[in-house]
Amino acid sequence: MPELRKDPVLSRWIIIAAERRQRPSDFLIEPPPVKSGGFCPLCPGHEQTTPPEVWAYRLGGDQTPNKPGWQVRAVPNKFPALRIEGGLDKRGEGIYDRMNGVGAHEVIVESPNHDEQFAYLPPEKIFYVLLAYRERILDLQKDPRFRYVMVFKNYGRAAGASLEHSHSQLIALPVIPQLISAEMDGAASYYHFRERCVFCDMIAQEIYQDVRVVDQNDDFIVISPYAPRTPFEMWVLPKAHASSYSDQNDKSLSSLAATLSETLRRLDSIIPGVPYNFVLHTSPLRSSCSDHYHWHLEIVPKLTSIAGFEWGSGFYINPMPPEEATRHMKDAKL
Amino acid sequence: MPELRKDPVLSRWIIIAAERRQRPSDFLIEPPPVKSGGFCPLCPGHEQTTPPEVWAYRLGGDQTPNKPGWQVRAVPNKFPALRIEGGLDKRGEGIYDRMNGVGAHEVIVESPNHDEQFAYLPPEKIFYVLLAYRERILDLQKDPRFRYVMVFKNYGRAAGASLEHSHSQLIALPVIPQLISAEMDGAASYYHFRERCVFCDMIAQEIYQDVRVVDQNDDFIVISPYAPRTPFEMWVLPKAHASSYSDQNDKSLSSLAATLSETLRRLDSIIPGVPYNFVLHTSPLRSSCSDHYHWHLEIVPKLTSIAGFEWGSGFYINPMPPEEATRHMKDAKL
Repeated sequence: MPELRKDPVLSRWIIIAAERRQRPSDFLIEPPPVKSGGFCPLCPGHEQTTPPEVWAYRLGGDQTPNKPGWQVRAVPNKFPALRIEGGLDKRGEGIYDRMNGVGAHEVIVESPNHDEQFAYLPPEKIFYVLLAYRERILDLQKDPRFRYVMVFKNYGRAAGASLEHSHSQLIALPVIPQLISAEMDGAASYYHFRERCVFCDMIAQEIYQDVRVVDQNDDFIVISPYAPRTPFEMWVLPKAHASSYSDQNDKSLSSLAATLSETLRRLDSIIPGVPYNFVLHTSPLRSSCSDHYHWHLEIVPKLTSIAGFEWGSGFYINPMPPEEATRHMKDAKL
Repeated sequence: MPELRKDPVLSRWIIIAAERRQRPSDFLIEPPPVKSGGFCPLCPGHEQTTPPEVWAYRLGGDQTPNKPGWQVRAVPNKFPALRIEGGLDKRGEGIYDRMNGVGAHEVIVESPNHDEQFAYLPPEKIFYVLLAYRERILDLQKDPRFRYVMVFKNYGRAAGASLEHSHSQLIALPVIPQLISAEMDGAASYYHFRERCVFCDMIAQEIYQDVRVVDQNDDFIVISPYAPRTPFEMWVLPKAHASSYSDQNDKSLSSLAATLSETLRRLDSIIPGVPYNFVLHTSPLRSSCSDHYHWHLEIVPKLTSIAGFEWGSGFYINPMPPEEATRHMKDAKL
């Protein structure tokens, strides 16, 4: 049974997900490369090999679940980090806090075509992936055990993708991830001080200075953040203040699809095949729209230059100024 | 000129250290493997190839700097992340904060023997490394520009070590790293609530429960923390409450050398050759002893199981319960 445990100093929750008994030396063995060829459980025709789908977008015609005809399909992860059944059993253990590792863990299959990469999906198809994120958040929000849904994508082996077939994942959690609560706290402090949303102020300044704006349209802006942890880190933000991704309407998601598609293709053009992660930073489930928190997507390329001491120190050394990264991105040949 | 920049949401400082103009695709090229054989700038006889030493421990006899005879030697890093000269020039840039990347970056060479690994140094020799850390902190503290000294070690290529010859590094910063200030804030909150130091309470509970204690002696305890981010993560803490590493006397450092040596050898015994990082978490320079902050060393093995989405979410999924890691460590054959 996975377990959530909280560090008493940082108030940071982590998941202990004990797998089949592993020998310590197993940790040094490189995980197998992403299977090329061979059986793919995410491909059409193999719907029976995944847990039953929880959502799908099918182009007209036969809407029967768990068979081909889908464009995007969301299924529970066959090897979930958290368990869907059961109560939280929140307990203290002396100075420590723990609860059962209850949660949902789903895979969103982004295309029926095994070889199609997310960045190269036509924006109309990316729209359906973004729709899946929204619909799954709205559905999972009904479960009172869950407080947050983390939507993320790992592209490429180095970024943690274990399957080749294009997919994202989401994890519904009974706690708020520490990085999100730190963001919310920071944003609230800024609002207290300035009575304005820090992200809105950021967008205004970036548009004005125009040195870190990678792309923008009527609804969204893509920036290289002022203080990036890693080269080519980028944030995608809605221009209009909004706290929750799940409040976005279809028109907004279409607009997001267009800019996300172009941004990822630019990135792939300048660093071909670069692995990346992206994570949706949105407000907790069932929270009302806040004046100070502003949802956004963070894209973090996974580069081979090794991070060194950043883990233990929380200090990042970035050799690529964001203004330079922006110029490279804008010069990309699409 | 390197630059320190602060993220306005998280109040997190990072270093922009623009190197020779790099093409984006350069980031995909694997860094060269740690040189085996060939010229080593840290070896005795090559003292002229490093910047002049700032500290050394020499066994009696000739104490002339920058020549062989040293046991431990501290030199400025030839390729520093921060520059030692100059003022901070702290400025706002709209909503953003920046300052010059001023700081010290030093390398502590841990042994004259090229092939000798830190974990296998006799404790009497590890003592001199720990002494170097203390003496460098006390010296750098005199510079009013610096607010914090981060001492860390990267062992093994995967953990960020670019040279084979056993060494640690330190970086003196004009800001407090965010992870440290988050720890201090968390510890202060706990103290406000309980009027006791959270780390002292942790030590008491761990001794009592005795399921996560890897090792202890009169002065120090080594634990697998309750909520670890990664398998075999370990913390070394002084049993007596203390905020600053630089206040430790020689007897205490000897005691630390003994337990650190044994712990790293146990780790190497159960996961042979495992790369690791360790980082010293201590209070800011020139701060008086605090009731709530407790210095400690965090050892983080670098395992090949890829972290996946942890970066963007701040959420860690750890397959190894710390109690199990502790049992493996205690069963290690030394």
